[in-house]
Amino acid sequence: MPVEAKPWLMDRVADAYAEAGVNISAGNAAVSLYKQLTGGWKHPDQIGELGAFNGLFRLPGDPEQALVASTDGVGTKILIAALLRRYDSVGADLVNHCVNDILVANAMPLFFLDYVAVGKLVPEMAAEIVAGVHRACRENETALLGGETAEMPGLYKPGEFDLAGTIVGIVRLADLPQINRVAPGDAIIALPAIGLHTNGYSLARRLVPEDEWGAALPDGDGVNFGDALLAPHPSYLRTVKAIREVAQIKAMSHITGGGLLENVPRTLPASCKAIFEQTRWKVPPLMRELVRRGDLSHEERYRTFNMGIGYTLIVSLSEAPKALAVAPGGFVAGWIEARGEDDSAVVVHPARER
Amino acid sequence: MPVEAKPWLMDRVADAYAEAGVNISAGNAAVSLYKQLTGGWKHPDQIGELGAFNGLFRLPGDPEQALVASTDGVGTKILIAALLRRYDSVGADLVNHCVNDILVANAMPLFFLDYVAVGKLVPEMAAEIVAGVHRACRENETALLGGETAEMPGLYKPGEFDLAGTIVGIVRLADLPQINRVAPGDAIIALPAIGLHTNGYSLARRLVPEDEWGAALPDGDGVNFGDALLAPHPSYLRTVKAIREVAQIKAMSHITGGGLLENVPRTLPASCKAIFEQTRWKVPPLMRELVRRGDLSHEERYRTFNMGIGYTLIVSLSEAPKALAVAPGGFVAGWIEARGEDDSAVVVHPARER
Repeated sequence: MPVEAKPWLMDRVADAYAEAGVNISAGNAAVSLYKQLTGGWKHPDQIGELGAFNGLFRLPGDPEQALVASTDGVGTKILIAALLRRYDSVGADLVNHCVNDILVANAMPLFFLDYVAVGKLVPEMAAEIVAGVHRACRENETALLGGETAEMPGLYKPGEFDLAGTIVGIVRLADLPQINRVAPGDAIIALPAIGLHTNGYSLARRLVPEDEWGAALPDGDGVNFGDALLAPHPSYLRTVKAIREVAQIKAMSHITGGGLLENVPRTLPASCKAIFEQTRWKVPPLMRELVRRGDLSHEERYRTFNMGIGYTLIVSLSEAPKALAVAPGGFVAGWIEARGEDDSAVVVHPARER
Repeated sequence: MPVEAKPWLMDRVADAYAEAGVNISAGNAAVSLYKQLTGGWKHPDQIGELGAFNGLFRLPGDPEQALVASTDGVGTKILIAALLRRYDSVGADLVNHCVNDILVANAMPLFFLDYVAVGKLVPEMAAEIVAGVHRACRENETALLGGETAEMPGLYKPGEFDLAGTIVGIVRLADLPQINRVAPGDAIIALPAIGLHTNGYSLARRLVPEDEWGAALPDGDGVNFGDALLAPHPSYLRTVKAIREVAQIKAMSHITGGGLLENVPRTLPASCKAIFEQTRWKVPPLMRELVRRGDLSHEERYRTFNMGIGYTLIVSLSEAPKALAVAPGGFVAGWIEARGEDDSAVVVHPARER
């Protein structure tokens, strides 16, 4: 039986996630309030609405291009990094996350700025974070234009920190994805996730307490929980650039908070639904273990974790082989079908656990 | 006797501030490490170095202009806002701080993004913060292009939050301040500070404990400590735009962390020093009280607090009257002199306390 994103399930998922301390309904309520509050005024060069995937701003002097900007954090993955004293990888996670966030708009990154907040500034620790940021910026050919390191005793405990970043990229307006070109029969190409990336950590930390981080992950080929939890958030920039060269991409999703069920619908016209067939890919061992421990329903797992898919691209079926030929690890994860009135936007056909 | 920024005093100030939990030397060490780490690679369109006032990036398609970006937070002022449950003003503080930060490069703001991190997301509280951000964006004719609201149980206590933001503006390269035009005899115009703005709060919170925030501030015209501590960080955009219309500005400083002693030197050529004469302005009551309670030396007070000056502009003496005519509250705070080999870059002639 397919798993569908029914409204009545939302509360249960919210409850399950809320148990771990994160309140999804409050997030939606906040975004709704933001829209009300900011609806009264918009800058004349601003394109689109607050709350959309990315903010767009007309490039000064060139009405055919826009700057695309996005701010994000790495969430409570940093609490794991802080306890394991491994600071380099979260810096790179942050940059890659932001690169992918604007990549869905077909935007190429220009520059990045970081915000590091600590309770007690240990220069070597802050430098390790920034080194990871700089390394990932370089890999993504993105300028590290600046940043702020804030020492705030009283707000952060010694050893703990927060990390956020802002990316600015550029896109031709003609290259913005046009989701109305998405049509039944199109293929959904998935790029593999390496781990949880930067989402689901509040629940994951609850299901795998700290004293287990040194223990081997079941079916993890000798990897321990700590390593699996800190597995990097990859950048999909190179792969997507390669696909763009050979195929027409109709729409893209970065699978972050909300998983396939909440991220893919934003790339679909109302007339279409996305069907994923889970037999087509292998769910990573960490997520299988988290699902088992949390006894998560299909709905819960696909809304909380990426379940092995980090990024999706919709192309016409005839273009799929060309795209796959230049996408290492990429695979067809599903297809587009016509959406009936009562259908969910995203359906994941469950597979045997494997 | 004038107060000079002698190196041997640095340690004492660092010690005094470190007692309140903020480690200035660690900050300098971190920045030094960042420079080493990031020195190996720079994007070809990046102008200037990391660690400078602002990051500059060539505007795509127009080699004569640059995008200017800056990220900042509001520091531990937010702990006061959180305890007093007044969330609107810190949002505006953040925007105005960022606007001023790029204004010193003569950059006009284009857009802004915020990062709000909370322990427990209360939509009304987050919305109040964002409302303040949006209000200030509108006042500065800056697009609020997006943002991130992160709920991170475990990192932030319920009721506490952090707030950071990134601004992107634009400047003609020909309009970048050229500090080599600064010359002996030039006037330093100061724009008044309203309160602490966003710096010195770790020390201020130590000197004025929470149970006093409802008490009247001495000589504060009935204002209590809480109100004085949360006094807004103003934007100097309109005033500076007005001055630009009538006078040639040689260099500008936004007086933030490090006060006059650390911010003004960045706008001076090696051949010049800045002389401030404190008889020319009134130190705000809150800072007078903090200086009294902390028994802060002149060096300490001018390095930790803005002492009543929020922004400085250097103009030739003949241009000063024109500039002052369009700068409400503005005054000549001092002048530029030739700097001898052993001179400090900034000297503040102390006044009687008034």
